[in-house]
Amino acid sequence: MTVAASRTIPPTRYRDRLAAAVAATEAARFDAMLVGVGSDLRYLAGYEAMPLERLTLLVIRTGEAPRIVVPRLERAAAEAGLHTSVEILTWEEADDPYALATAGIPGTGHVAVSDSMLAMHLLGIQRTLGSGVRYVLASAVLRDLRMIKDPDEIALLRDAAHAADRVVGQIAAGRLVGRTEAEVAAEVRQRLVDEGHETAQFAIVASGPNSASPHHDAAQRVIAPGEPIVLDIGGSLGGYGSDVTRTLWVTGGDSAKHPDDRFRDLFSVLHAAQAAATAAVRPGVACEQIDATARTIIDGEGYGAAFFHRTGHGIGLDGHEEPYLIAGNSLPLRAGMAFSVEPGIYLSGTYGARIEDIVVCGEDGPIVLNEAPRELLVVDG
Amino acid sequence: MTVAASRTIPPTRYRDRLAAAVAATEAARFDAMLVGVGSDLRYLAGYEAMPLERLTLLVIRTGEAPRIVVPRLERAAAEAGLHTSVEILTWEEADDPYALATAGIPGTGHVAVSDSMLAMHLLGIQRTLGSGVRYVLASAVLRDLRMIKDPDEIALLRDAAHAADRVVGQIAAGRLVGRTEAEVAAEVRQRLVDEGHETAQFAIVASGPNSASPHHDAAQRVIAPGEPIVLDIGGSLGGYGSDVTRTLWVTGGDSAKHPDDRFRDLFSVLHAAQAAATAAVRPGVACEQIDATARTIIDGEGYGAAFFHRTGHGIGLDGHEEPYLIAGNSLPLRAGMAFSVEPGIYLSGTYGARIEDIVVCGEDGPIVLNEAPRELLVVDG
Repeated sequence: MTVAASRTIPPTRYRDRLAAAVAATEAARFDAMLVGVGSDLRYLAGYEAMPLERLTLLVIRTGEAPRIVVPRLERAAAEAGLHTSVEILTWEEADDPYALATAGIPGTGHVAVSDSMLAMHLLGIQRTLGSGVRYVLASAVLRDLRMIKDPDEIALLRDAAHAADRVVGQIAAGRLVGRTEAEVAAEVRQRLVDEGHETAQFAIVASGPNSASPHHDAAQRVIAPGEPIVLDIGGSLGGYGSDVTRTLWVTGGDSAKHPDDRFRDLFSVLHAAQAAATAAVRPGVACEQIDATARTIIDGEGYGAAFFHRTGHGIGLDGHEEPYLIAGNSLPLRAGMAFSVEPGIYLSGTYGARIEDIVVCGEDGPIVLNEAPRELLVVDG
Repeated sequence: MTVAASRTIPPTRYRDRLAAAVAATEAARFDAMLVGVGSDLRYLAGYEAMPLERLTLLVIRTGEAPRIVVPRLERAAAEAGLHTSVEILTWEEADDPYALATAGIPGTGHVAVSDSMLAMHLLGIQRTLGSGVRYVLASAVLRDLRMIKDPDEIALLRDAAHAADRVVGQIAAGRLVGRTEAEVAAEVRQRLVDEGHETAQFAIVASGPNSASPHHDAAQRVIAPGEPIVLDIGGSLGGYGSDVTRTLWVTGGDSAKHPDDRFRDLFSVLHAAQAAATAAVRPGVACEQIDATARTIIDGEGYGAAFFHRTGHGIGLDGHEEPYLIAGNSLPLRAGMAFSVEPGIYLSGTYGARIEDIVVCGEDGPIVLNEAPRELLVVDG
């Protein structure tokens, strides 16, 4: 029924990542790094714990071996799920897990916590450690590790991108006119899974005036001939994200319902901006410069106010992660960084368009993972 | 392809809930309640925001109308997604959203934050408001609202339970022997969606010795004749959770592969414990008493050490929420509370079993939402 991801990260990689995180925690002079359930935990130890309310916490301490605190009923799941050797400490249902997790951490200094830790757990930790500790985000040290994808990660991102590309092609070739956005979105989700994704995380199907809302939630609107559809879809495959956007125009087979001149102009500006921003990718170029490249072109054609979001976001185990391609981010690109390049132009109340690829910064320039054609897809629908 | 949930919460309900939350915030003398993306936001305002890194925050202040801070690119999505009237404030990509969100909140006193807020946002808020504020979990006031389900919520929980029951029946009637746990889990997920769930959140398929791990992650183990399978599945339907566990025994059609006496004994003790705990449900009985009812029976038959998790958890918009049926929780049950009753017995390295229903506390006793037979399901598989 589904195509399982056949590619995985080799187990030795987790040992190396965890060692690097320990070294980085020490170098930053943090007393501890506390990593809750989520992508940081999966990155460091391979463990995809269920995101439940019971505390699961990887504890990295300067000068000590990492250990993980898990509810007793998840011990076997943790043993099976951990891809590297970490001591497992368990807590019983009626215990206070925060005392166990923070034992030995001084009540002063700096403690890093994973960005996606739940407030309920962070407040529990803060309550236990007292007010003398200064809390920082674990991304302060983990970002440098997670941002640079190794060849196995890039291969997984490529698999995910190609799977999403196939779904774009299937949707563009199928029936659209007369169906609701929600119906098409349900089809997208099913096809993402059929093409190998473990989960279909989003399926933006924004038709007609809804295409002017970048994060439109697919709704009961019925798709009509003579309007654009922004199709922005993705999920995760082997843990790594796909995220692709293409803009379609449905004619219903009616030659009078082809794109109007204004939309063609808007789209050609967008296409040029997306291509230029992608072409600007190379090591040493600042993230904000990629954003500025797209924005300068769109501004220059008079659509500046209609492009009101950043140009892109990193992607990996999280669908959105560092680096962010946004004004003010002077971080230089490095080989192995992976991110979306996705400018958009939105004319409120009328229509809009967006083009998005996942791009890896290669040694000599951009490596574009998506292969679906990125011109305006004019289809009968 | 999928059965859409036809039942929804009436829009006027959100107005009432939000008003109740404002009143409760004032009564608790909190200066503000800050609600991030997640089930609290959905409960109060109907808005299912995408769980992304950009800050979306509902701000409830004593003496002021609630407002919501959203990224500008999500304004249209928020307008469409909010089911009640709330002022929308937007922030631009390069702004500091925490300053906008916390404007006017004093740097002293108490601020409640939603339990599932991400640490990255909580630290941003703490950095902005300074160290004079004491943070508490929003559940301190929201739990009393969310724990008591109204008839529409109970109807949604019932729909979800029946959908999951149908999947249990389909799986029990299908082929199991010779397939991997992961293959069966993929089928469960697909069937949950086909039966009306928006999302299939978990599919525990724990066979043979894996059945002794309560949160076993379905793996490549091939199911063999003569062993049990703990099937614990669920997702959300109309936003409300399903969560049902049944224990199967697969014989492969071989009369020599029927359950052994030890398993039959274990299961009969479990069955009695689950039935007794369910029967004990009525208003005024403490949560810990339901747990004790199951535990006393299991302890009395010598399996006490093999039942090492709480008896149940609340369910609603979250798969796990209050009330928790656990030792030490003296909270009295009230009519309208909904929760799982799910004792288990696990013999490490050998096998285990669990039975779980979703139960609503009715005025006169338990209302059991699941209808799938809960005896040991001995099947050819």
